[in-house]
Amino acid sequence: MRKAFHEELDRVAETLVEMTHLASSAMNRATTALLDADIHLADSVIAADAEIDALRADLDLLSFDLLARQQPVATDLRVIVTSMRMSSDLERMGDLARHVAKVARLRYPASAVPAELRSTILQMGHVAERIVEKAGSVIAARDLEAAQQIERDDDAMDDLHRELFARVTDPSWRHGTEAAIDITLVGRYYERFADHAVSVGHRVIWLVTGEFDPASEGSHEDAEDGATVGA
Amino acid sequence: MRKAFHEELDRVAETLVEMTHLASSAMNRATTALLDADIHLADSVIAADAEIDALRADLDLLSFDLLARQQPVATDLRVIVTSMRMSSDLERMGDLARHVAKVARLRYPASAVPAELRSTILQMGHVAERIVEKAGSVIAARDLEAAQQIERDDDAMDDLHRELFARVTDPSWRHGTEAAIDITLVGRYYERFADHAVSVGHRVIWLVTGEFDPASEGSHEDAEDGATVGA
Repeated sequence: MRKAFHEELDRVAETLVEMTHLASSAMNRATTALLDADIHLADSVIAADAEIDALRADLDLLSFDLLARQQPVATDLRVIVTSMRMSSDLERMGDLARHVAKVARLRYPASAVPAELRSTILQMGHVAERIVEKAGSVIAARDLEAAQQIERDDDAMDDLHRELFARVTDPSWRHGTEAAIDITLVGRYYERFADHAVSVGHRVIWLVTGEFDPASEGSHEDAEDGATVGA
Repeated sequence: MRKAFHEELDRVAETLVEMTHLASSAMNRATTALLDADIHLADSVIAADAEIDALRADLDLLSFDLLARQQPVATDLRVIVTSMRMSSDLERMGDLARHVAKVARLRYPASAVPAELRSTILQMGHVAERIVEKAGSVIAARDLEAAQQIERDDDAMDDLHRELFARVTDPSWRHGTEAAIDITLVGRYYERFADHAVSVGHRVIWLVTGEFDPASEGSHEDAEDGATVGA
């Protein structure tokens, strides 16, 4: 009984890690689709989001079932509660990759990204991939050191987001309102993607240390406010 | 023991309803602050968000504690799991009101909203207030009829959001890129606010009927894509 239970908990963790890989792949392909105006790639990202959603639904059913059947306490209970929260973060990250792909689709055959912003968006894509892969390692290994590194990646994302805002709101901007709106939304999608990875890191910290972190949600995602101020 | 437990469950529901009132008041005041460029009101919204965050942290601790101590099953278990999810939605709604207030603050002493969009933003504020108050009634009374009405309010919000987008991306737009970006972000904040109310409605439906709704997250929030297409 207990052995089967711990195998089920392992399966929960493996599914979460699989979700991080899917979210990473989705954001990688969405970034390429956006930069290269690749509509087939964009469509593949949009279609693949259903897979992440399905994993999340499976995981939530399994978690609820484990709570009901096993009546876990202490660490096991924390694992299940945390997993339900992390599945929500990872599902949302999949949505955000899909949103980026939809902007790519919308502007096809043009690219939504003006040439001088390609490098910034490419870097945001790289940070997004890195941060979600790191979240996967944190989930798999409960590595608090790696959880801290996620914060630094998020700082890097905030800097890139700020840079993007500064460019879009600069008086020298020559690409019109529609392009500015696309870049504003895309920038927010990348930034929120990183925020959810930060949440995953905080949840693992809670899992390991038992310390609730009231700052784990919301408060780290104000980059766009500062960005607009600074612009 | 059981009596105390059900009193604690009642307290959970009361706290959630209190969070809906706080989120409603926050979005009401944020809308006024935005339209009237009222920096004191904006600051009061920004400061008050800590109260919603604190209620959410309390609620999550209480919920976890109830799971650990009471080992609930069936409906009681569903109530607690659902409450943890709803507290997350409501906390996020508070964040979104704070984001609107921050845009108001940023553009002070000007208003971020051009005269011809005031009526649309005002209506979005009204729908936001109405939808979160309805979410509160749904939580308090487990009223499935009201839960369905939330969907219609969300449709009304999507229509207003689409209208906003059409205006901002219209060739006749005369207010420049920065104003367009402000309106784009503000529009997204209102729309996401309504999405979280929809999630609350879906969670109560699950609570009452036991039916998982895989479409309850993410998929209803694509209005801005269609809006941009339609523009």
